[in-house]
Amino acid sequence: MAHGAGGRASDELLRTVILPGLGNDPRSALPDSVVLSNIGERLAFTTDSYTVTPLFFPGGNIGSLAVNGTINDLACSGARPLVLSLGLILEEGLEIETLSSILDEIRKATQLTSTRIVTGDTKVVGKGSVDKIFINTSGIGVIPEHIGRIAPNQARPGDAILLSGSIGDHGVAVMAARENLSFSSNIQSDCAPLHSLVASLMTATTDIRCLRDPTRGGVAAALNEIARSSRVGITIGEDAIPVHQEVNGLCEILGLDPLYLANEGKMVIIVPSDSADTVLETLKNNPLGSESNIIGHVTDDHHGTVVMKTTLGTHRIVDYPAGELLPRIC
Amino acid sequence: MAHGAGGRASDELLRTVILPGLGNDPRSALPDSVVLSNIGERLAFTTDSYTVTPLFFPGGNIGSLAVNGTINDLACSGARPLVLSLGLILEEGLEIETLSSILDEIRKATQLTSTRIVTGDTKVVGKGSVDKIFINTSGIGVIPEHIGRIAPNQARPGDAILLSGSIGDHGVAVMAARENLSFSSNIQSDCAPLHSLVASLMTATTDIRCLRDPTRGGVAAALNEIARSSRVGITIGEDAIPVHQEVNGLCEILGLDPLYLANEGKMVIIVPSDSADTVLETLKNNPLGSESNIIGHVTDDHHGTVVMKTTLGTHRIVDYPAGELLPRIC
Repeated sequence: MAHGAGGRASDELLRTVILPGLGNDPRSALPDSVVLSNIGERLAFTTDSYTVTPLFFPGGNIGSLAVNGTINDLACSGARPLVLSLGLILEEGLEIETLSSILDEIRKATQLTSTRIVTGDTKVVGKGSVDKIFINTSGIGVIPEHIGRIAPNQARPGDAILLSGSIGDHGVAVMAARENLSFSSNIQSDCAPLHSLVASLMTATTDIRCLRDPTRGGVAAALNEIARSSRVGITIGEDAIPVHQEVNGLCEILGLDPLYLANEGKMVIIVPSDSADTVLETLKNNPLGSESNIIGHVTDDHHGTVVMKTTLGTHRIVDYPAGELLPRIC
Repeated sequence: MAHGAGGRASDELLRTVILPGLGNDPRSALPDSVVLSNIGERLAFTTDSYTVTPLFFPGGNIGSLAVNGTINDLACSGARPLVLSLGLILEEGLEIETLSSILDEIRKATQLTSTRIVTGDTKVVGKGSVDKIFINTSGIGVIPEHIGRIAPNQARPGDAILLSGSIGDHGVAVMAARENLSFSSNIQSDCAPLHSLVASLMTATTDIRCLRDPTRGGVAAALNEIARSSRVGITIGEDAIPVHQEVNGLCEILGLDPLYLANEGKMVIIVPSDSADTVLETLKNNPLGSESNIIGHVTDDHHGTVVMKTTLGTHRIVDYPAGELLPRIC
């Protein structure tokens, strides 16, 4: 508890564990507030809290998730991520080794994305008041001048809907790690930063309508949000949606629908139909988008509703997810 | 748990409780990320997590604390606070009524400070995984053009040290509420936003060296940080430091030193000595600074150390706080 009290022990934790762990200079504090000069005219600002259990899972961990998740939220506005804040809430008794491993993953994820943790805060709470560690990352990114408005309410009838790869891997990987489902040992979270994929898209076309990372609630929630915000209908084809065979298998056993599972390294992209082929090619040229596909289109029918043409040729409504499938996986 | 799963129940919580509670339009979501255009050349960026127990205490609550604390961190860079993010981590089973009361306090605090919650995130975690509610607020503020660098490493020998009012009220109020110390019923937290006080200071003088809100670790931690960052000595006078009689009484009974208690509505201000009288007058003209005083000065001796001349005429070192006094009060 002393490590969170703002005194010598807090300072020691900061200088011997947190700052070195993040790769920051231990002689200079992580300030309560930081000054940013002339970073750009249009900025994106986002926040997200990460409470995933377990802290480490195949393909990722709470540290990489906290960096990549916030970077992907910024990328969804078309922004180049620049700086992040880091709010740690630690449980009394958390092993320093666990904390160090998480900080190391945060460091690696920021290095990989050329972002920096510029301001931070650490709280320590009593045993049982938090589940080991919760992380909040907020972020600021810069939107390039030539980019128009990218938002969930910008979809228009006729637009093409693309998905940057297979879905459900993160949701299944976390659930399998939590429940010790050994038969699913090959499934890895897709946790990845998508800012470079988005940057390459913005080079290929200036006309992007919506970008959405389908995290909690999956592709179903992302598409429903777009259909509602844009007051349009959305039609997708089941056979066009990439799902890894193992994920599909596990979903069938457990009665889950991959459309509702969380992803942490995928993007839903909506562009005018005449740009769709260029965008698909650009996506496929990026290792993070090699399994991309055009999965459907925006219509002027059934406003606010997502409809899927199934592999059997029938149509079904893909509703907003009703409750929880997998708690706390993103 | 369904309220945190990103589907219909999450959406319902957002539209029927969170958005109306914050005074935002329930028809427009609180976006994952927001675009800010042309807000200023120099920005301050800060983050803080709030884990206070109890959630409501005399003079404040976790909602007002989360807004004012982040506003005060921005004010310490000389910034005018502009926008905030709101990250909520809720415990499964938290009463909607409690959440609504907290959101109402957040709404009032943002209205009072002309700030806005522009982006947010809500997670719900299993019972026992969090202590009712934790809040993270990050904030962005704009630093006026004429203001120079204000930072803990800018103090210089000869500078005057001012304190904007009496200390220890917040720390004692929270402890009393937690421990049900009925004899301390008149002590209220000083929780308040200090941006207008800082704005009036910056009108009075352009030459402010350091601003520091003495929260966790109290005035002792704030002054030690400045002494160390600026590589100077600091000397303060015990009789110059305002402490309310009731706070002093309770501290004597419990063996606490007010210098180490948290404050949530006070500012330590360091300015060149020839500006000290003007600054003091400006502070005293503001209701939030009516008990301000010049409490000491910066020296070229005992670098990195804070020394206090006691009421008995002796000198003692005011060390960095060693461990915890009052856990989780800010």
